[in-house]
Order: sequence, then structure tokens, then C-alpha cells
Amino acid sequence: QTAGMEPAIQGRMEGAEETALLRKMDAYWRAANYLSVGQIYLMKNPLLRRPLKRDDIKPRLLGHWGTTPGLNFIYVHLNRVIKEHDLSMIYLAGPGHGGPGVVANAYLEGTYSEVYHEISQSERGMQRLFKQFSFPGGIPSHAAPETPGSINEGGELGYVLTHAFGAVFDNPELIAAAVIGDGEAETGPLATSWHSNKFLNPVHDGAVLPILHLNGYKIAGPTVLARLPHHELRSLLEGYGYKPYFVEGVEPLATHRLMASVLDVVIAEITGIQQKARAEGFKTRPMWPMIVLRSPKGWTGPKVVDSVQIEGTFRAHQVPMADMDKPEHIRILERWMKSYQPEKLFDQKGSLRPELAELAPKGDRRMSANPNANGGQLLRDLQLPDFYDYAVKVLRPGAAQVSATTVQGQFIRDVLRLNEERKNFRVFSPDETASNRWSAVFEVTERCSTAEILPSDYKVSPDGRVMEVLSEHMCQGWLEGYLLTGRHGFFSCYEAFIHIVDSMFNQHAKWLEATRHIPWRKPVASLNYLLTSHVWRQDHNGFSHQDPGFIDVVANKRSEVIRIYLPPDANTLLSVTDHCLRSRNYVNVIVAGKQLAPQWLDMDAAVKHCTLGIGIWDWASNDKGFEPDVVMACAGDVPTMETLAAVDLMRLNFPDLKIRMVNVVDLMRLQPASEHPHGMTDKNFDVLFTKDKPVIFAFHGYPMLIHKLTYRRANHSNIHVRGYKERGTTTTPFDMVVLNDLDRFHLVMDVIDRVPKLGSRAAYVKQALLRKLIDHKRYIREHGEDMPEVRNWKWSGEKFGD
Amino acid sequence: QTAGMEPAIQGRMEGAEETALLRKMDAYWRAANYLSVGQIYLMKNPLLRRPLKRDDIKPRLLGHWGTTPGLNFIYVHLNRVIKEHDLSMIYLAGPGHGGPGVVANAYLEGTYSEVYHEISQSERGMQRLFKQFSFPGGIPSHAAPETPGSINEGGELGYVLTHAFGAVFDNPELIAAAVIGDGEAETGPLATSWHSNKFLNPVHDGAVLPILHLNGYKIAGPTVLARLPHHELRSLLEGYGYKPYFVEGVEPLATHRLMASVLDVVIAEITGIQQKARAEGFKTRPMWPMIVLRSPKGWTGPKVVDSVQIEGTFRAHQVPMADMDKPEHIRILERWMKSYQPEKLFDQKGSLRPELAELAPKGDRRMSANPNANGGQLLRDLQLPDFYDYAVKVLRPGAAQVSATTVQGQFIRDVLRLNEERKNFRVFSPDETASNRWSAVFEVTERCSTAEILPSDYKVSPDGRVMEVLSEHMCQGWLEGYLLTGRHGFFSCYEAFIHIVDSMFNQHAKWLEATRHIPWRKPVASLNYLLTSHVWRQDHNGFSHQDPGFIDVVANKRSEVIRIYLPPDANTLLSVTDHCLRSRNYVNVIVAGKQLAPQWLDMDAAVKHCTLGIGIWDWASNDKGFEPDVVMACAGDVPTMETLAAVDLMRLNFPDLKIRMVNVVDLMRLQPASEHPHGMTDKNFDVLFTKDKPVIFAFHGYPMLIHKLTYRRANHSNIHVRGYKERGTTTTPFDMVVLNDLDRFHLVMDVIDRVPKLGSRAAYVKQALLRKLIDHKRYIREHGEDMPEVRNWKWSGEKFGD
Ligand SMILES: Cc1ncc(C[n+]2csc(CCOP(=O)(O)OP(=O)(O)O)c2C)c(N)n1
Ligand SMILES: Cc1ncc(C[n+]2csc(CCOP(=O)(O)OP(=O)(O)O)c2C)c(N)n1
Ligand SMILES: [Mg+2]
Ligand SMILES: [Mg+2]
Repeated sequence: QTAGMEPAIQGRMEGAEETALLRKMDAYWRAANYLSVGQIYLMKNPLLRRPLKRDDIKPRLLGHWGTTPGLNFIYVHLNRVIKEHDLSMIYLAGPGHGGPGVVANAYLEGTYSEVYHEISQSERGMQRLFKQFSFPGGIPSHAAPETPGSINEGGELGYVLTHAFGAVFDNPELIAAAVIGDGEAETGPLATSWHSNKFLNPVHDGAVLPILHLNGYKIAGPTVLARLPHHELRSLLEGYGYKPYFVEGVEPLATHRLMASVLDVVIAEITGIQQKARAEGFKTRPMWPMIVLRSPKGWTGPKVVDSVQIEGTFRAHQVPMADMDKPEHIRILERWMKSYQPEKLFDQKGSLRPELAELAPKGDRRMSANPNANGGQLLRDLQLPDFYDYAVKVLRPGAAQVSATTVQGQFIRDVLRLNEERKNFRVFSPDETASNRWSAVFEVTERCSTAEILPSDYKVSPDGRVMEVLSEHMCQGWLEGYLLTGRHGFFSCYEAFIHIVDSMFNQHAKWLEATRHIPWRKPVASLNYLLTSHVWRQDHNGFSHQDPGFIDVVANKRSEVIRIYLPPDANTLLSVTDHCLRSRNYVNVIVAGKQLAPQWLDMDAAVKHCTLGIGIWDWASNDKGFEPDVVMACAGDVPTMETLAAVDLMRLNFPDLKIRMVNVVDLMRLQPASEHPHGMTDKNFDVLFTKDKPVIFAFHGYPMLIHKLTYRRANHSNIHVRGYKERGTTTTPFDMVVLNDLDRFHLVMDVIDRVPKLGSRAAYVKQALLRKLIDHKRYIREHGEDMPEVRNWKWSGEKFGD
Repeated sequence: QTAGMEPAIQGRMEGAEETALLRKMDAYWRAANYLSVGQIYLMKNPLLRRPLKRDDIKPRLLGHWGTTPGLNFIYVHLNRVIKEHDLSMIYLAGPGHGGPGVVANAYLEGTYSEVYHEISQSERGMQRLFKQFSFPGGIPSHAAPETPGSINEGGELGYVLTHAFGAVFDNPELIAAAVIGDGEAETGPLATSWHSNKFLNPVHDGAVLPILHLNGYKIAGPTVLARLPHHELRSLLEGYGYKPYFVEGVEPLATHRLMASVLDVVIAEITGIQQKARAEGFKTRPMWPMIVLRSPKGWTGPKVVDSVQIEGTFRAHQVPMADMDKPEHIRILERWMKSYQPEKLFDQKGSLRPELAELAPKGDRRMSANPNANGGQLLRDLQLPDFYDYAVKVLRPGAAQVSATTVQGQFIRDVLRLNEERKNFRVFSPDETASNRWSAVFEVTERCSTAEILPSDYKVSPDGRVMEVLSEHMCQGWLEGYLLTGRHGFFSCYEAFIHIVDSMFNQHAKWLEATRHIPWRKPVASLNYLLTSHVWRQDHNGFSHQDPGFIDVVANKRSEVIRIYLPPDANTLLSVTDHCLRSRNYVNVIVAGKQLAPQWLDMDAAVKHCTLGIGIWDWASNDKGFEPDVVMACAGDVPTMETLAAVDLMRLNFPDLKIRMVNVVDLMRLQPASEHPHGMTDKNFDVLFTKDKPVIFAFHGYPMLIHKLTYRRANHSNIHVRGYKERGTTTTPFDMVVLNDLDRFHLVMDVIDRVPKLGSRAAYVKQALLRKLIDHKRYIREHGEDMPEVRNWKWSGEKFGD
């Protein structure tokens, strides 16, 4: 059974004094279990002072018991080593559905009552603690933001290890204990995140202690890892680069003894690795210790209910015994709770007995009060360079040909440089930093790797601050862990593949939404995305790489926490980037191209434009002092270029047409003010877009998003949107817009179709445009690149500022 | 270097005859490499009959070289064993960006010319082959649907192994060779999908041969697996349950020899495992063999360009040498291509020389022509029971209290039963089959597992047809592989967590979109989702489990391939399920609750309602023969119930209000006919929803989706939608709708606010409703469950059919 134990470990924790300590720890564990069961079942009679009645029990039983005793078991053991070695540790419950356990422990160590005064350390407080759990007006069932000490909700399973690693990067004193459910371990994100150890440098990073919790089951089925032969499991974990210690048991005292012994060894190893690395510098990636805890699901719970086995089976997963109208079930519950001997755990008042309370660490050392789990407390502003210093000279609109993200990369480089000492900023990408044109960052740092490095590698080092791994999940999870512990970061990603983390984004946005209503949670740095290699410029790739829909997912989340920016050129991108890096508690999504593209605004104009978020480009409009005949609106770099090219064509062909050109940087400006803090009032919207003139809107993403944002506006029925309509393949840049009717020629035709005054005199132009599109098709099929007049098109309008 | 080789293997393939064969195979490999380079670079002069000129070379160089020689190397070796053992094998290129290689091989074995006549086996055909690649009007850069033999595009990386396993389940003769990029191996989905072997039964499933391709790099950085010490990599793969064979080399002939020897062993082992299992029955999970191929990235490509090393580095990833305006680069390209000795590979006409062509398998044995890779060819209709047999008796609307998915589960059970012999139907779920109330399936089958099974397990067997693993990615990937090889399936999932596979859904939808334009690809069975445990009934869980946004992601894909159904009760769910199981080439999303809920329609009415997709419920309307004062529309089970409860309240309070109740099952009916094949004409829409009356729309999902679908309709500005607005926690079912203003009381208030004729006489009712909501809040906070009048509400309308 204890196949993984070495003799040296088995010899520890064996004296009489140790046994006494272990017995106290067992009592503490029982207290946590007692409080967990109480939360799931009771609303009255918390200390069972009188016989349990139906009426004491909640009418709806909600929560998860199965995982909880294991979580509690681990918690008390970690407490011991924290105290003994004065460690800074946080606790991440992978199976966050074990919320009752995490809450119970926060309550036992006093933190809970400190942040929620109502839930005091008394019988009354305990009653409230029980009642509030999964109860209307109470708290959620998981290790949610409401839970002190939590940075991992654990509702959507799979992220505990990547969160833990994110938390300890650049956090040398911190140990993140990460309990991994054996079901959770089957998820893709978890399965790959074991490899995070190839990115952890003990010299300046903290440590993660993975604790794989093999309770054998998930909701209903057995788990993969619990059913591996022992040697295979060991082989797998060693293959992942860990040194596994196995703790297996059913009988409490023996298992406590084993766990304590193993933890002593594990902590010694972690400290040893760190001391060595910090004394001698980084040499090679160490084998970090980890623990495999094999214990019954629903440990210490009812063994049999209604003649079926509960403890040790999947049936213990949720509420192990329902239908509390059966008196027999009430008796089982009472016996179960009394088996923990509450009278020995809590005093007359209902507080944890002092000899048990002293087992918990004090102050900030309590895992539920560790400031790393409320990272806003630790957050320091980034040192930011002046983004004006990176401005692209734009003497006239369309003059310069610049890759916007290349310029942004120079700014990011200097953010890295300026915060090098504080070590509180990293960039994350699925192997796309260079591809996304942030290569400038490699002037000051490298890709991070603590694995073997070869001469043929470029810019790879164990001290690198560029976190590259081909896993969008790991990038996202690391960054979340890094942010939630009070640091800053940026995630750059191909636009299409950011959908891989849709659900992780959802969970993080929900976390942020929830924290807005929790006064003791301090604001953390925003999660910043650069989405590039976007739908319109997928040159090496094709249809599979074309999906601008992430912003649709984002727009479904509550407006208080989300921001979407579509800067049309490099200077606007710089301004937006600076803004995002200063913001707090948001998810900022920036979509910008990496290819060479014309530049429109000088820095002064860019800043003003970004600050307003939306505006008329007067140099591209000719309706000043008039009513416009048409509003040419656009959002996104390629649509902006096509719109300007269309305006250019119209100037030539319809010199007396009054055109207003409106560009949108901050997409949320389009929403009503009632819907989003950035939203425009109807008045302002109507002034800009008119109440009755045709609006031709060239949009970066799926057209519906614009309708969704504007459907309440007076002029909505005149807003005609062009965007991605899921047509694409590997083709030329201009052909991509043509395939989706977003090109300059279609835009002009849209105007012809919608502006009555152009009437039939425009028929010749329209026909010429249609012919142009035929030329285009023929040309690209022959030459493989766009027609020179398209490729070399330049804005011909008057000089900037004129 | 060849640490993984056993002496017995090293001894094989050593005679003179073998050497001659290996040399021929090398030539075949060179031919594939030549054609790959040609596709990336050339548009003319395919056989280099005259000196290469700038003009022969494409102006835009697009594609990926680095992975390609490895893919080609593997391909020719698989060809040998296919021929030798008459195997049925398909080839899945994980790094599908190696499209040139997969296309080259399909061309070499003749399939390509068979399906694309223009691309003949001649100099002219070769020129077209080259030019079309990543070229406007040509083909995509990846192993896309356009590529014969492909079932894995490999654009979004990570799915090759799960696709491969899906392909071989219930496919005993098939071997799926799955090449895994070492970068790809870092993705979460790939990392977990190694464990698919715990679900594969050699008695009735085929085999997967994983080939981990360690070329050391991804786009720019080194890969994790390539930098593991040998023993760690071995340990990892053994821990995953495989027996790895290592093939490492640079020198072609030696590496061919090694690869051939290893493949002989590997195929013998696979056959051995299968024969034993099929003779003796399933005993224990075998250790399946796999191959680790360590070869240089960009193998055989230019070693150095512009003084930097290319071969063997990340620089070989895409186009290893650009800027072909440099004459020196043209010379390098020419030398490179000539190094393959094209004159020895192709005859005067430009066809592969017969002595090489004979190396390829013939007919359906060609991997590019294996019918499993065009699964529609193999597809047989499911045997479906008559769904009327499962009908819930609904004597009057609202009478029965039934769990809809439980009933659906009974139908699915019998689909499993009826197709047990054909073995062409499986269900997939992340450990939620029972939770989602499909437990009836366990009357006829079990959860599938070839791992250890314990007495405490319930319904687990190596022959089970319920594929449960706690990985939405694996469920999705397996199902895709299963469908694309010509079978049928169903994926049941918690609604919120289906977002985990947003991007996989995107890719599959794109695949289906593309195949619609490829005549030789035969239609496959639709991918069916049941989304349940939905946003409105997350009793044990909370905010993190509440997200109805998957259908928004779905609605962004092209309408030809997507269908979204929101059946309001069990009978409609049955009808929709039957429909989905008969359909082809779609993604069908069904959203339905699992909790006990009132039933509205008897089967006859349900079928008619589902067939029309949308309709007036006359028994809940009183406007027959009149203009309605208000249209109460709804989609989704909970919104339908709230709407009916609101109608109930209004009947009582406003007896002369003319109400029309409209229910939507098929969401796409709301779209204009021009936008979706199921879309309604404006005329029909206007008849149903009126042109000017207020419409109160109670919707299951985010309200914007309804606006998005209806914004073009005449009456859009009167459509007022209630739905999920991202408010939630662990609370009572009714409180969830209250939090989001979707409850019956809010709906009535919405009517009061919008129907002028109710005017101020409705003020008393409104005030009573507001008070009711206060009662509600107080009641649930005290009792933890909903008020009896809400909990026990029943439709009080006339008898059904009256
Ligand atoms: C990604 C994801 N899929 C599905 C679920 C539904 N779910 C909740 S708990 C659970 C089983 C968890 O098993 P395990 O990780 O072993 O936790 P434990 O046994 O400790 O409860 C599942 C599948 C989920 N929470 N997250
Ligand atoms: C999920 C995903 N993220 C990012 C990319 C962008 N990308 C394309 S190729 C590639 C590197 C692939 O490396 P590897 O799997 O080792 O393939 P190979 O070296 O054989 O080309 C990356 C990151 C992608 N295609 N898919
Ligand atoms: Mg478990
Ligand atoms: Mg690679």
C-alpha cells in the first residue's frame, strides 16, 4: 500500500509527543469535517445540543461532501508545517466544489469571522455559517471569491496547477499547495500543466506542492489515475518531472502519521532545492517533490445508507444522503456528526477549543489570510515608460507603413525593462511572441525555460520573463495566477485560437464580477489580451485560423469588467496599451494587426481619439457644416483601411457627396450608457451617426456584434454592417475582404445602394466596381498577390491637420 | 541516441535486399519532399527543366516546411507495412500545417489526380499542384477537408490523438497512425488524450499508433518533450501506458533502417495484441506500442541561409528562406530541390517512376483513399425506435411533472440497443451521463473502461458504449473522430462547460462548411449536443456553472451547418432528438433541462410544433379572432414555464387583455429566410409576431441573441427580451429567474409597462407584484426554498385541446 515510502520517512513522527500532536491534529480535522457536514445539512441546532429534528435540516441539500474530508485532512497537515517552519503558503483546492471544507478551515482559523463579522466564533455564528452555505442570500457552494484564501474557484475543473504556478512565479517566499482532484486530473489543461515545472526557477520563483488526491472517483465513474497500476502512476509523475511521495490510508491516525512524515520530507526537499539554487545559482531543473494522497471518497462519512455503500464510492460525491424526511436518515446524520465528538472540539460558547485553535498559524500566515490570496493587497503600480516616446511619425495620413504590434512590442520591452527589479510583469504566449511581432522584448529578456537549452536555441534562459508554451490554457492559467497574487501581465495570442480559453475567460470574468461586491478583496491588475494574426491577415494559414468571435464571448459578460479595443494603427495601439496596463479589475481585449499597414494618426490625435474612444476623422470627412449623406463607420485596422480607400474612391467619383468618416476604437462606446460604463448617451450617438442617414459600418468581427451593440439606437435600421461572414481560405489579404464583402469596392457599392441622391447616375461607377472585382479575381489567381493598385494604394486626401 | 532500441530490432532490415528496398523508399521520400518544396515555392518550371528564375517562384511564399520531411518520412514507412500486411490504415497529421507533405503523398499515390482531374500525374499536373498550394483559387495550406485522406485539419493543434482514437473505436480493422508534433504535445487536449488507451478495447476496436515527432521546435521556441532527459520521456510515455520505440537519426539510410525495423516490431505487437484479445477475450489493458521519431526540423532542407543555421532549428518552421529577389536564394532553392534528384524520381512525362509508384498501396488501401477518411462513404443510417413510444402522457397542459432528459435517456437507451450489433453509435460525456439523467442507458450498456474495475464501481465495463472521461476536449475529439469515420453519436454536457470546446466546435463547423463544397466528401452524421444542467437549474453549483453562451458561439458559424433547438418539454425533446439523429452534416445543439418540470404538449402536438419550429400555443392564448394586445414569446423550458405562469396571472388580473403565446423550439426560425435555411419569411414572421404589438420575449440565453436574430424584422423595436444577464449564485430555482428579471412577475410588469391600454388601472397589480417579489426574497432567505405558490404553481388554463 505504501509502496512509495522510503524507510527514512516511515521512521519519522513516531514518538509519544508526536502521537499527541497527531491526535490534536486529528481533532482539528474532525472539527473541519464537522463544520463541513453542518454546512451541507443544518440550518439550526449547530452543536447538536438537542436531538436533531427534520426542522434543523435544510429543505434543499446542496453541496459536495466526497472531496471535503480529503481537503480538510491536507489543510491541517499544511497548517502544522506552516507553523513549524513559518512558511508563507496558500491553498488551492482543485475540486473547489469542496467549498464547505475550505470555508470551514477559514472559519476555524478566525479569518472568516474577521471578514464576515456576522459569522462569529460562537454558536450563533456557527449556525449562520451553516445556514448561509448554498443558501439564498448566503454564499456559493464553491471555493469562490467570497471564500477568504481562495484564488481558484474550482467550479470549472482543471486549472489548479496552472493557477498555482502562476502564483509562485517571481514569488520566492510563497509555496502554493495545489490539491488536484483525480477527476480533475483527466482534463486537458490539468494534464499539460504538470509541465509547468519546466518554467519554474527556484532562484527567484516560489514552489508549488502538487497533492494529487486519489479518492478514486469523480461524479459517477472511477478516475483514470486512480486505476493505474502503481508503477505506471509513479512512472507518469516522474515523467512529468516530480518525485512522488505516496500517502495511502483509511485509518486516521496511521494516515496522519504517514502524511506528517511525508510532509516533513517534502518541505525539507523544497527548502533544500531553494537554498541550493539561491546559493549557487540555477544549475539544472530539480525534481520537485509532490504528494499522492489515496484516501476514500467521503472519508469518515456514512458507510452505508439504505443498504448501499457510500464511503469510498462515487455515491459520496455530492450530498451522500438525501431525503431527510426519513427519520432513519436523520439518525444517521446525527450519528455521523456526533462521531466527530463536537463537544471535545468546541467549547460551551461554540468556539474552537484553544488547544486546537493554537494549531493554526497566526495572522498572515493563515492560508485563509495570506495576502497572496488577496493579491490586490500586494499590488504595486507598474513603472511605465512614456508611450509618446514610441510614437510613429505620421506626417500625413497613410504615409508610414508600420507593423503596429512591432511598435507595441518596443513599449512592452521597456515595461519589462523598467520593472525588471520589481519582477512583477511577465508576458505570456503560446509560442507566438515573435510571430506576433513582439521580438523587441528579446532585447531585454528571453523565453523562460528551466529545461535543457541548446546552442541552436534563440533567446531561451531560466531567467526569461517571456512565458511561452504551446498551451493557451497554461498561458491563461499562469497569467490568472500571477494577476490574482498581485502582479501584472499581458497575453498575446492568435485571434482565432483564443477561443481555446473562452471558458477560462468566462470564469475569470465571473471571478472579477463577484469580487466587485466583496469589499475585502482589493482590485487586481487587469487581464490584458493582445489578439493579433487576426482574421484578415492569416497569410500562412487559412480558414481554421479565421475567427474573430472571441469578442462576442467577451461582450456577453457583465459590462463592468470587460473592455474591447480595436485600435486602427500603431499610435492608437500604444495609447490603448498604456491605458490597459494602468487599469484594474478588467479584462481588456485589444485586437490589432501585426502586418505592415498604413498609419493614420499622429500621437496627439491618437491619444485624443482613444480617450474619446470614437470619433469623426475630419481629414477623411467632407460634411463639416453640412448634414452628411452617408456615415462611413469602421472599427478595426483592416476595415479602417478599406473604409478610407472607399472614401477615396467616392471623393473621386462623387465629389459632391457629403461623407462623414467615424472610427471606433473602444467598442463599448457603441452601447447605450445604461448598458456599459463607456456607453454613449443616445444624444451623442445620434449626433455622431445621425438619426436617419445611412451608416455603412465596416467591422473587424462578425457583423452581428455591431447590431447587438446598437440595436437600441434611433438610427439602427439604417446601420448596414459588413464584417466577417465566415468566408475564407488561404488567399491574398485583399481577397479576404472581398470574400466577405468588406472591401473598398463593396463599401462604395453599399453607399450607392443606400444613398438615394446618387441614384442612377452612379450606375456607371457601380458597374466599374463590379468589373474591378472581376479583374481582382483573375489577377490573384494568376499572380498570387493583389493587384498593384490595391497593394500600393495610398490615401490621397489632403495633408494631415489641414 | 537509440537508447530505446532493443537488440532484436537493431538486427532487422539488414540484408542487401532490404537495403535496396530502403533505397527505393528513400527515393519515394525524396519525391514527396521534392513535391512539398515545389508546392511552397514554385508556380512554374516544376521539374526544373530549365534554370530556376525569379519568375518561376511564387511572389508570396506561404506554408510550413519544417514539419514536412518528417511527415513524409513516416508516410513512406507506413506505406511499406500497409502493403506488406495488407493493412487498413489512415494517417492523421497532428501538425496539419505540414499540408504540402500530406498533399504530396496523396498525389504520389494517385488519389489526388482521381479526385482533382486537373492535377494529373504529368508535368502540367505537377505545375498545377505546385501553383494551387496556398494560392488564390487553390487549396489551403493545411491538411484540410480538401485533402484526400485527412480527417484532422491540424490547424488548431492538439486534437490528433483524440481524433485517432475516435476513428478506431468500433473499427476493429483500422489502424490510425497519429503523428503528434512535439509542440502540439504541449497542448492540454493532447496531453490528456494519451489516456484514451484506457478506453480502447482490442477485441472490437482498432488500434492507434502514436508517433511523437520530436523535431525539437515549435514556431520559435524549443519544445518541452524534446528537452526531457531520455529517461524522463520514456517514463512519461510508459506512465501514459505505452511502450515507446525510439527512432533517432539524421543520416537518411540509417534512419530508414531503424524506422523500418521498429515499424515491423510495432505492427507485430499491435497484431499480436489484437489476435490475443480477439481469441481470448479482453483480459487486461495492454501496453500499446508507439514510436518516438527524433529528427531535425526541416530535415534535408537548406542547412545555412544568409549565414544562419536553418536545418535542425526553429528557423525551418515556415518558409525557411524568403526574399527570393536575392539571386543567391534562388540558387539555394535550386540546389535544394535538385538534391532530391528529381530526374531519378519522375519520368519524362512528369509521372512518378513505376518502380517507385509500386511502393504505394493500391486502391482503398492507400491512406489517402481509405474510406474511413471519407466516412460518409461508410455511413449507415441508425436504427431508430419509434419515439412516439416514449411519449409522456399529457392529459392537460402542465399536468405531468417529468424530467425531460430522463425520457430522452430512455430513447437513447433504445438507440444503443437497436444498434448494438452494428456498433455504430456511442454516447460521450464528461462524467455526467447519470447527472444529466440519461441513466436509462445503463440498462443496456456501461461506462467504457479497459482499466482496472472494482466492485464498488457501478456500470463500468470494457465493452461499455458510454464514453465518460472528465475532459470535454476528449469527448468532443473522440466524437469527431467517430463521426468523421462514418458513425453516429451524442455528446451530453453541462451547458456552461461546453464552452471548453468552443474552439473545437468552431473547427468542426468549419470542416463541415468546407466539405459542403467538396463533392467527393460524402455527408457524415451530425454532431449532436445535449446541453443540460443549464443556467436556470444549477442547484448544487453556482455562478461558475451559469453560462448559456455556447449557442452564441454556434450562431456565428455559417447557417448551413448549425441548428439550435430549445424544446420546452419532454415530448418536444423526443421529437427533436429523433430529428437530429437522422440529420447529416450539421452541428445540432439541443438545450433542455433535467429537473422535474411541467409538461405542455402531448406527442401529436409536440411533433407538429417541432416540425414548424415555432408556433402559437392556442390553449395559452386568447386572441383568436382578434388582434393581440401583446405577444408573449418564449424559448427554452424555464422561460416557457415562466411565460405560462405570467399568462396565468394576466388572465386573472386582466381578463380582457388579448394575449398571444408563441413558443420557439427551433431558434433559427427567427432569422430571415435569407440568412438561414430554417429562417421565416418576413411575411410569416409579421403574421406571428405582428408588426406593431409589444412582444415580451422570455429567452433561455443571453437576450442579445434574440435581437441578433430578429433585428431585421419589422417589429423588432417592440421586441423586449428577458434572459440571462449574468446574475447568479447558488440559490433557489425561482430566485435565479428573479435575479435576471425573467420571472413571471417581471414578465407581467413588462406587459404592464408596454401595453398602453392597461394604463394606470394596472398600477395596483404592479404594486402587488413588486410586493410579491419582496415576499419571495424574504421567504427564500428564511426557508431556503421557493414559496409554495411558486413551487407548486400549476397551469390553470382550460383542458388541453379545448
Ligand atoms: C470542466 C468540468 N467538467 C465537468 C464538471 C462537473 N463536475 C463537477 S465535480 C466533478 C467530478 C470531480 O472529480 P474529482 O476531480 O475526482 O473531485 P473529487 O473526487 O475530489 O470530488 C465533475 C465532473 C466540472 N466541474 N468541470
Ligand atoms: C492551438 C494552437 N496554438 C497555436 C498555434 C500556432 N502554431 C502553428 S504551428 C505551431 C508550432 C507547432 O509545433 P510542433 O507541434 O512541434 O510542429 P512542427 O514542429 O512539426 O511544425 C504553432 C504554435 C496553433 N496552430 N494551434
Ligand atoms: Mg476524485
Ligand atoms: Mg516540433
